[in-house]
Amino acid sequence: MAHTRITRTAVLTFEHISEVVRAVGLDRFMDDIISGLSCAGANLDPEATVVLERSGFQYTKPDVGLIEWMPSMELGRAVGIKTVGYHPTNPTQRLLPSVMSTTSIHDTSTGQLTALVDSTLLTALRTGAASAVVTHILASPEASVVGIVGAGAQAVTQIHAISRVRQITRVIAFDTDPAVSATLASRLPLSVPVTVVETAAEAIALADIVCSATTVDIGAGPVLPDCGYLPHVHINAVGSDFPGKVEVPVALLRAAFVVPDDPPQCIREGESQQLELSELGPSLPELISNAGQYEHFQQEISVFDSTGWSLEDLIVAELALDHARQLGIGMFIDLQSTPTDPYSPYEDVLG
Amino acid sequence: MAHTRITRTAVLTFEHISEVVRAVGLDRFMDDIISGLSCAGANLDPEATVVLERSGFQYTKPDVGLIEWMPSMELGRAVGIKTVGYHPTNPTQRLLPSVMSTTSIHDTSTGQLTALVDSTLLTALRTGAASAVVTHILASPEASVVGIVGAGAQAVTQIHAISRVRQITRVIAFDTDPAVSATLASRLPLSVPVTVVETAAEAIALADIVCSATTVDIGAGPVLPDCGYLPHVHINAVGSDFPGKVEVPVALLRAAFVVPDDPPQCIREGESQQLELSELGPSLPELISNAGQYEHFQQEISVFDSTGWSLEDLIVAELALDHARQLGIGMFIDLQSTPTDPYSPYEDVLG
Repeated sequence: MAHTRITRTAVLTFEHISEVVRAVGLDRFMDDIISGLSCAGANLDPEATVVLERSGFQYTKPDVGLIEWMPSMELGRAVGIKTVGYHPTNPTQRLLPSVMSTTSIHDTSTGQLTALVDSTLLTALRTGAASAVVTHILASPEASVVGIVGAGAQAVTQIHAISRVRQITRVIAFDTDPAVSATLASRLPLSVPVTVVETAAEAIALADIVCSATTVDIGAGPVLPDCGYLPHVHINAVGSDFPGKVEVPVALLRAAFVVPDDPPQCIREGESQQLELSELGPSLPELISNAGQYEHFQQEISVFDSTGWSLEDLIVAELALDHARQLGIGMFIDLQSTPTDPYSPYEDVLG
Repeated sequence: MAHTRITRTAVLTFEHISEVVRAVGLDRFMDDIISGLSCAGANLDPEATVVLERSGFQYTKPDVGLIEWMPSMELGRAVGIKTVGYHPTNPTQRLLPSVMSTTSIHDTSTGQLTALVDSTLLTALRTGAASAVVTHILASPEASVVGIVGAGAQAVTQIHAISRVRQITRVIAFDTDPAVSATLASRLPLSVPVTVVETAAEAIALADIVCSATTVDIGAGPVLPDCGYLPHVHINAVGSDFPGKVEVPVALLRAAFVVPDDPPQCIREGESQQLELSELGPSLPELISNAGQYEHFQQEISVFDSTGWSLEDLIVAELALDHARQLGIGMFIDLQSTPTDPYSPYEDVLG
């Protein structure tokens, strides 16, 4: 079996990703994602970068769940496709995260799969980082109190990411499961006082910044109160990612400056399901590109409708791959190859 | 780092696939795919099996190419997504096959990636098998002469697959590159006389069954002659997979009974681009389900518009995985996992 070209696929498993993040340092890795997103958003050239809306399968058997794909392309270089599963019963029934995902990266010269990256941690990180980018632009510069509604895995990366752009002095946390909010402090990578409260209203009352990240059932939302917010509150709503699932009351959205990460996707499955396209503010890249223009919203109510933007996944996967390459972390698999004669598909089989 | 659940992803590289096919036997493996497709087509329950049209990125830089994804779901069990690159300059410029692909399989209970399978050979095999399924139904029972237009990699699996459903006594082959048609006989897994001819008209003149599998440029087709066919010819047109790329003249299509594998996809990028939806015959699964009803077309001109049906990829990948499991072939990667506490995304990083 002679092969003129062996094509190597880089694989980063969850252990490799952890190793990379430990080696780089969690704070620096988060900072890199935040600046990577800011940079990509500010320099987005629609001729060179194509970001598609995700699509996928949604189902109610065996349990409610979905499997979707989130594609983006840097023209002339790479296509990234993150495949993500969202299965809200995973943590309680299977001791698995509700969101599990992998990102595949393909060379646009050859079609080869150049890399496969476990993206469960990376997705949590980039979701935090996206909130940090928007929080940096839209939250009060003096914002210091973070209110949490939904204290699971996403809350951890939200608080961590926000701590990189604002000086957090206090977290006030609510979860429908008190056992979850009780452990939030111990799961954070920073030292900050966490007050556990019994209602969402208490969590948001003193908050300069609110993060909602719940697994509320379809049709059961919203989870945030209608009123009782500080007049300058910035809300990162990261839980909506499914038609019918919402966290923010429509009256609050209507009163707020709303930034959808990906407008058509947000209209379909984000908080913006409750709005018309004309009621939305700028998209995430538009906000980043014209940040100065929106600074006055730091003193008003703003909502980041974060459904997950496909380009975030390509950026964070390539960041992890770059660090892994430099650190010598990861494995390579001879996944795809070619017979000596590309016209002879059976060469290896008959040879 | 304590993990309550390590999730193993089965990986089949090109070498594992070759090993499986060698162990099972090429003919038996092809027969298994042919009967797997026939069976799936005959029993297709739209409530249980969801096949989506492919979508993807098409581009002209650095060269003309595309990267697409082809998703299908067996409800309550698995989602399969084949990601495929088509880069027609691969063989001449990079010694790589023009079509390279991998299939990922996801568990619909958890979202986990259960398998990653190199699908370059499997795609060629299932494309052959799909033609064999249709040829079995629509070609004359006495068909014995196969005319080939485009003698590259796909021609090999077309001829092989057809040989499993009809007694082939002769192949007449044309390729725009005489060096390619000259080696066709040596690349086949069966012994059959191959006559190399200098025009497509000669390749089809005596053929009971024609296979067109070319990399004709967008806008440069068709490649098959308008006329000169036997009155009962069955044509498997497997090359069209890109808007603007066609192999069969529209007059011939209009005169023929046309079976699109996936009608909306064929209308968009197959031979059926040249037709209205109302001019199409039954889809591949409809043809299989009602084969008896279409038997009289064995004596008339018929065209199989084969663009690639997503379910074919799930079937062939799972067939390979089943054989691999039984044979103990393949590797497992601990790709995705979970911290002890699914609410603690940083557990491994900080631990």
